[in-house]
Amino acid sequence: MLEELKQAVWEANMELPRRNLVTFTWGNVSGIDRKAGLFVIKPSGVEYEELTPQMLVVMDLDGNRVEGELNPSSDTPTHLELYKAFTEIGGIVHTHSPHATAWAQAGRAIPCYGTTHADYFYGDIPCARNLTSEEIEAGYEENTGKSIIEVFQDKNPVYVPGVLCKNHGPFAWGKDAAQAVYHAVVMEEVAKMNLMTELLNSNADCRTPKCMLDKHFMRKHGPNAYYGQGK
Amino acid sequence: MLEELKQAVWEANMELPRRNLVTFTWGNVSGIDRKAGLFVIKPSGVEYEELTPQMLVVMDLDGNRVEGELNPSSDTPTHLELYKAFTEIGGIVHTHSPHATAWAQAGRAIPCYGTTHADYFYGDIPCARNLTSEEIEAGYEENTGKSIIEVFQDKNPVYVPGVLCKNHGPFAWGKDAAQAVYHAVVMEEVAKMNLMTELLNSNADCRTPKCMLDKHFMRKHGPNAYYGQGK
Amino acid sequence: MLEELKQAVWEANMELPRRNLVTFTWGNVSGIDRKAGLFVIKPSGVEYEELTPQMLVVMDLDGNRVEGELNPSSDTPTHLELYKAFTEIGGIVHTHSPHATAWAQAGRAIPCYGTTHADYFYGDIPCARNLTSEEIEAGYEENTGKSIIEVFQDKNPVYVPGVLCKNHGPFAWGKDAAQAVYHAVVMEEVAKMNLMTELLNSNADCRTPKCMLDKHFMRKHGPNAYYGQGK
Amino acid sequence: MLEELKQAVWEANMELPRRNLVTFTWGNVSGIDRKAGLFVIKPSGVEYEELTPQMLVVMDLDGNRVEGELNPSSDTPTHLELYKAFTEIGGIVHTHSPHATAWAQAGRAIPCYGTTHADYFYGDIPCARNLTSEEIEAGYEENTGKSIIEVFQDKNPVYVPGVLCKNHGPFAWGKDAAQAVYHAVVMEEVAKMNLMTELLNSNADCRTPKCMLDKHFMRKHGPNAYYGQGK
Repeated sequence: MLEELKQAVWEANMELPRRNLVTFTWGNVSGIDRKAGLFVIKPSGVEYEELTPQMLVVMDLDGNRVEGELNPSSDTPTHLELYKAFTEIGGIVHTHSPHATAWAQAGRAIPCYGTTHADYFYGDIPCARNLTSEEIEAGYEENTGKSIIEVFQDKNPVYVPGVLCKNHGPFAWGKDAAQAVYHAVVMEEVAKMNLMTELLNSNADCRTPKCMLDKHFMRKHGPNAYYGQGK
Repeated sequence: MLEELKQAVWEANMELPRRNLVTFTWGNVSGIDRKAGLFVIKPSGVEYEELTPQMLVVMDLDGNRVEGELNPSSDTPTHLELYKAFTEIGGIVHTHSPHATAWAQAGRAIPCYGTTHADYFYGDIPCARNLTSEEIEAGYEENTGKSIIEVFQDKNPVYVPGVLCKNHGPFAWGKDAAQAVYHAVVMEEVAKMNLMTELLNSNADCRTPKCMLDKHFMRKHGPNAYYGQGK
Repeated sequence: MLEELKQAVWEANMELPRRNLVTFTWGNVSGIDRKAGLFVIKPSGVEYEELTPQMLVVMDLDGNRVEGELNPSSDTPTHLELYKAFTEIGGIVHTHSPHATAWAQAGRAIPCYGTTHADYFYGDIPCARNLTSEEIEAGYEENTGKSIIEVFQDKNPVYVPGVLCKNHGPFAWGKDAAQAVYHAVVMEEVAKMNLMTELLNSNADCRTPKCMLDKHFMRKHGPNAYYGQGK
Repeated sequence: MLEELKQAVWEANMELPRRNLVTFTWGNVSGIDRKAGLFVIKPSGVEYEELTPQMLVVMDLDGNRVEGELNPSSDTPTHLELYKAFTEIGGIVHTHSPHATAWAQAGRAIPCYGTTHADYFYGDIPCARNLTSEEIEAGYEENTGKSIIEVFQDKNPVYVPGVLCKNHGPFAWGKDAAQAVYHAVVMEEVAKMNLMTELLNSNADCRTPKCMLDKHFMRKHGPNAYYGQGK
């Protein structure tokens, strides 16, 4: 069932340790088949060295396990909420990558300080609020998803393909699992560069001018994009 | 004698350089057989590349070498004190991993700023005081253990499986040698993330709300834990 | 066509991931044949693992593609401007290496704080201004080149073989593609050291005394240079 | 000639890139045969990948090249001064390792903040002053050695086996070339830890109490040393 998607999601998961985004099992990637209404996700607590495509769990959008013998990632209800709300995305990743997590712990959005950021994220990467104790006690992981969606009420998740959760860490997404991981790598790099930027210039706003942000995002993603080898 | 334990303790020791927790010989792991009342520990000053399971030293809980031709780690009396006081633990590790050591040198407990921390440590990781010159002159390593125990008078060492020693570095422990090293890796990661968190937000308390700490620690370690594949 | 130059430029490009100067495709190297009036440059958006010498694109100094089926790097007009203005250089590189990019994002020139810098850059590494919205809208990449040239009106680009572009990242150059990459490595190292220098001593000017800068630059590059094995 | 010493000095040189202490050719190690009054040193500007034991240069203590076809390291006169003044040492190393260089650029001695430091350096690692323009113009490298010796007028170079040179970088030494490199690794680790320590606690003096410094240095190097497997 969904063997091709499982292979792709497995490969995206295996990219996490290769890109130094995870320690131990602190991350998970999923990918969705929109026609089938099913998504494939990493099982909970399985080491990357032992992970095989066959271990991945197939879930439906009501949160039922459709295939697989292992428990799905404990973050599965968060993925589910995001797939339901952000209908254009095809893959989601969560990690505790250290620099992005530091911004999340600091409770701060990542400002757009340069073209590395502007090439992939059209504006600041927001930080979702802490949940209330009621939201934590019942349906913590589902409510985490809802708190992310709350932040995107006035944002396009395709133009800003990632978020921080306060005192927790980053989520990123994309058109498929591989692109989700790509965006997670960008977030981690930008989180690292921007921390250093603030240490070097604490008295000024280092934000990229709007016209430069437009230029860089649009030359890659706009209707007249000219970066790369065409589509 | 205790060949299986020696193998496990050797593997835990070898994990230290693989996880970048040690430079040269700056670390040691031990594991205990509670029934036999004996523990196995790395010999002093032996390079990891040359270490074999047979070189490990077997000690009893009176501090006598029961087997082995090499001197045990100079930190052996610290391990001994911890095994006697923390009767539920099965393995101990000491390193000079750089980020955790920086917090120790700064004389500061590591605050719980996020879920990476809350998943394994139920609250701040404390920092034990400096020893007095009397405590240093006679029985330095034994008194180091006692200063750690002092800090845990009102803490559960199973819920907070690690500590910093001021101007020195971290100790961590767990149900066995492998889990002790696992906790040492978590401490180092958290020490790194938290330093960056403070650089990003020096004016606020970034501490994880209590309800979130409870949730994350308990979903992994509480009676109704649901992380992973069950026990 | 220009097979030897293609091989050299390919090797210089492949040095970027080996030296940890690039993530994904965030960098490009070119090299020029001054007699032929042609330069060879990386194609846009091609992964380094897939790059072969045959994929490189040959451009003339009017910006026409002379050979190659792929689109040249989107930064090609910047390279072109620099080759026209800095007639003594033979290779150019652009990256988003994290420490140099942090200085660029902070909008700060890299001060000469030590001999590591003075051995290769005769004075501060300048930071070019942001472009105006007009300059960005029409001919962004070409105008990026012009803003760099503006900064070098009173500087010798052979003595200061690199620059930062505000909110963007570093460019470096040299007598050929290999030396351009060499200088990009130096910039990244110096950017890292100097950030830490300021964290250690925020109240003082850590600048290298002029006589020491002269000594170090000249013992490597002056008429009586005595570093290395002669020329 | 001195084939055994060449082999040992070559191995110590090759340890520099393995320990990430050098970029390109930014470092050199030498070792001395006190009976012969000759020392062996890395040739200037030779890449580590190409270095063979036979390329090493043999020098006498008057600064004459006794064997070898390549120019010795440009820092050779500094090594020479140190061998003449510090008669108990057998090996010297110079690098531009990034954290130690940051302290040198900041013009600050590295304070003893913990046992990692105290285990090898009996007190702060000093920072030698800038040379005057006269000292730079004539005999720069020789005067660098003299400025180091100046700092050690009231220190034992065996107890404090390293130094920083302002706006330049670290030198370290030991009983032989291998131990010199060992001490350079310790300096770099301590420089890294101590920078982070100050970021975590900028209001307090994090210095190791004197009794703890004594204990740690002496349990490894004192007459009653008990670390390791005996001598």
